[in-house]
Amino acid sequence: MGLFTKDIKTLDDLFVHTLQDIYYAEHQITKALPDMIAKATDPGLKQAFQNHLGETQQQIKLLEQVFRQHGHEPKEVTCPAINGIIDEAQEVSGEVADKEVLDAALIAAAQAVEHYEITRYGTLVAWAKQLGRPDCASILQQILDQEKSTDEKLNVIAESKVNSRAA
Amino acid sequence: MGLFTKDIKTLDDLFVHTLQDIYYAEHQITKALPDMIAKATDPGLKQAFQNHLGETQQQIKLLEQVFRQHGHEPKEVTCPAINGIIDEAQEVSGEVADKEVLDAALIAAAQAVEHYEITRYGTLVAWAKQLGRPDCASILQQILDQEKSTDEKLNVIAESKVNSRAA
Repeated sequence: MGLFTKDIKTLDDLFVHTLQDIYYAEHQITKALPDMIAKATDPGLKQAFQNHLGETQQQIKLLEQVFRQHGHEPKEVTCPAINGIIDEAQEVSGEVADKEVLDAALIAAAQAVEHYEITRYGTLVAWAKQLGRPDCASILQQILDQEKSTDEKLNVIAESKVNSRAA
Repeated sequence: MGLFTKDIKTLDDLFVHTLQDIYYAEHQITKALPDMIAKATDPGLKQAFQNHLGETQQQIKLLEQVFRQHGHEPKEVTCPAINGIIDEAQEVSGEVADKEVLDAALIAAAQAVEHYEITRYGTLVAWAKQLGRPDCASILQQILDQEKSTDEKLNVIAESKVNSRAA
């Protein structure tokens, strides 16, 4: 899609544009996670990030399946939102001196990423259903459930140990 | 906080930094909402954005109360995440030709903003409790509940009429 060229004429165009946006976002997340894995101190947190990296790579394949089922080649479109969220994560984590406080900051950053994904997949599921594509909706729902579960796991790690150690 | 100067040494520093981040974000949201109100076609959506503008202005006052209760003057720190989310909202809405598709795009954009706020306030509530500040946690929880309720209202507007009209 070009910038301000009014290329989005239908809900279908908007659906495909948003797929391209989240497809770009998932790729950026796979690039950002190795640094977060390296920076995390708590072994459980390190492992959770590692697992999420594998899951994100799988989600990229699932998105490619949605593109093809919907008659489009997978394509990325730059997503300023995820770029801003990742920039902020890197900026804040670069400012933290203490390892245990850094773990708390990394969890907060990862949860901001998860919530971005949760909102986009929630929207995509609703639009896929509206467009009469329950097949696409079902794959997107599967990814949405994984993102919600990752967010919940990060909550548990934060509240069970990381926050109290950081305080 | 300076960039990469390792100014965040404690969870308390991280809490204050994140308060400054969301304080900046809320100000940016009050600047972005009038344009979204102007662009929305559905009267219920226009009204929901209008109500949220009033609520956001109130939330800024509540955040100032949290800053002061915690012994700090209210201060903004640039938040690349909200800037990216708002840039993307403006970019996508500038590309949509059809008014009813635009309403669907505006709701998706507003929900991305809400989810950013939900994750940040969720984190701030947890940290405030950990830091022994139930008074701050209680105000932040009040804002968090409002953000969740706004997100839910937008869901209802999308699913009850906007998405089907856009399709």
